[in-house]
Amino acid sequence: MHDRIHNFNPGPAVLPLSVLEDIQASFLNFNGSGMSITEVSHRSKWFDAVIEDAIARTRRLLGLDQRFQVLFLQGGASMQFAMAPMNFAPAGQTVDYVNTGTWSTKAIKEAEIQGCTVNVAASSEDRNFSYIPRELDLTPNAAYVHITSNNTIKGTQWPAFPETAGVPLIADMSSDIMSRPFDAAPFGLIYAGAQKNIGPSGVCMVIVREDLLERIPAGLPTMLNYTTYVNKNSRYNTPPCFAIYVVQLVLKWLEETIGGLDQMDALNRRKAGLIYDLLDRSEFFRATADADSRSLMNVTFRLPSEALEARFVAEALEIGLGGLKGHRSVGGCRASIYNASELAAVEALVEFMQTFERRHG
Amino acid sequence: MHDRIHNFNPGPAVLPLSVLEDIQASFLNFNGSGMSITEVSHRSKWFDAVIEDAIARTRRLLGLDQRFQVLFLQGGASMQFAMAPMNFAPAGQTVDYVNTGTWSTKAIKEAEIQGCTVNVAASSEDRNFSYIPRELDLTPNAAYVHITSNNTIKGTQWPAFPETAGVPLIADMSSDIMSRPFDAAPFGLIYAGAQKNIGPSGVCMVIVREDLLERIPAGLPTMLNYTTYVNKNSRYNTPPCFAIYVVQLVLKWLEETIGGLDQMDALNRRKAGLIYDLLDRSEFFRATADADSRSLMNVTFRLPSEALEARFVAEALEIGLGGLKGHRSVGGCRASIYNASELAAVEALVEFMQTFERRHG
Repeated sequence: MHDRIHNFNPGPAVLPLSVLEDIQASFLNFNGSGMSITEVSHRSKWFDAVIEDAIARTRRLLGLDQRFQVLFLQGGASMQFAMAPMNFAPAGQTVDYVNTGTWSTKAIKEAEIQGCTVNVAASSEDRNFSYIPRELDLTPNAAYVHITSNNTIKGTQWPAFPETAGVPLIADMSSDIMSRPFDAAPFGLIYAGAQKNIGPSGVCMVIVREDLLERIPAGLPTMLNYTTYVNKNSRYNTPPCFAIYVVQLVLKWLEETIGGLDQMDALNRRKAGLIYDLLDRSEFFRATADADSRSLMNVTFRLPSEALEARFVAEALEIGLGGLKGHRSVGGCRASIYNASELAAVEALVEFMQTFERRHG
Repeated sequence: MHDRIHNFNPGPAVLPLSVLEDIQASFLNFNGSGMSITEVSHRSKWFDAVIEDAIARTRRLLGLDQRFQVLFLQGGASMQFAMAPMNFAPAGQTVDYVNTGTWSTKAIKEAEIQGCTVNVAASSEDRNFSYIPRELDLTPNAAYVHITSNNTIKGTQWPAFPETAGVPLIADMSSDIMSRPFDAAPFGLIYAGAQKNIGPSGVCMVIVREDLLERIPAGLPTMLNYTTYVNKNSRYNTPPCFAIYVVQLVLKWLEETIGGLDQMDALNRRKAGLIYDLLDRSEFFRATADADSRSLMNVTFRLPSEALEARFVAEALEIGLGGLKGHRSVGGCRASIYNASELAAVEALVEFMQTFERRHG
């Protein structure tokens, strides 16, 4: 294991070891080019093969039809918070947002900066974002409905996506894209910073449905117009080549080693189930999210005191379980168990939790 | 040499072999973290050390005083084409641009999209951008004067920067940053996509002088406001960690192996001199840029016919000299010899050029 730890970081996060080993082995000479992947031209046959494969695998894994374009942008999901309303609600239209935590709140702020009339169709702020709202107050002719599919910080996840009566859904899927199958048809835009489930930081996967592109107003800065990326196959200027390459390898692993999204989903449910079962049985540990809104990606929990939480995180790290501290804005503990987090890592965590409870419970 | 070629690509471009070997060796376990550099948190002590070292080395190498902030952004220089006027010429002010080729032209277009009144203070378009203009028609109270310090496609470079009587200079230095020493004091903003001289694609170094920050208007999207990056030390959201890490290693190599910018400049002059001397002696090869405007980074040249140019590029690649084709918009040949291009690579190229001329001249 090369002295590697079990990495429960929320993002950047663990990557499949086989992917890292592939990158390492070919790092000085990529695919017979005589150059590192960091040195080949983004317009070369070598990089063409990388990006085309990443797009084809994304299409297959998510079952996307020809109406959808798969793009790779820079700036993370945070840049998408601004680009989505800039492109798709240009005339100060009403946009519906569901506020399920920190990232939704930031997305709402950027829509307001763009001059949109933001209708918060639902919010779980009343109980510290510990659940996914079920009742939405949607605007009939909204430009779109924006959701955050998984809430990394609060540990909640939409179990199923809302009905929007034909209004396009827009989703920030940064922390659960490719973790489970879903029907893409109702989505006008899906975006996901890669650094949790599909790669390293530095690239954001963007999936856009062609009918949305017709709304884009004239006069946007070239780099902030989705059409620029559609027309140039994400290469108007030099893209983040290395990050796209890692995404390609992760998607290959997902298809060929894991077997696709159904298998990934089953494995993710098994991993999360091991921890939630322990939390539900324990009088010592306490899950923070409502049972019907729990995230399969980020399991958030508390211990009886902050002192015990600090000790838990420190002792875990001593035995090679890293990244278990909760987000600085909420405290507590959090195990991020994205796609690449191995079952063995989760089993080691559960065993440690049981031991810790016996010693301190 | 691990079957590596001599890489004359214009960008992404060659990186120092020792840097690539460093990355490869520690790729599964970065600095004792038990994680890959692609897996560590951007808020961890491991990444803190990377970004702080990259900033400190940039300050030392360029002799930046405390008025300057060193930032790392995404989106490449193309995003800066929009951000510079958006932040620093907000009220439709007059801005001066010197048009020295493809990239300057794109920068001008983005300033116009922002509603600026663009004064093209000089242009070398009359002779296909084959020279750097000496006479500038500057606006006395312009918001700034924008230049492209090195023109990758046309093979020209400013031998010295223009006097602007106190108006801040803004420079796109993507293709020659860190290739030579210069006085940063007159610059309000310097930006450089990393993928030519200082790293891989996916990160843009931005150096901003604090008095410019006072001009930034309210109401910009958070990710398009330089203050966001200044206030959060380039980590408002997850930065492109791997790309910043490679930049750090390249700057370390530049300081510790090369010895700094004076030594780098001397080596770059020696490398470019070998090729230009051959071009000047030859009746077969012809340099395309005016002698007083020649780039030390991108040596552009023609052969007697396009058929010979195609044959030159193909035969060069057969003996391991790659990337010598000119930009698709101008044709001809181009040897990009950035900082990391080794003297031995240039010597091999010159030898091949001599052989090719003997055979076909």
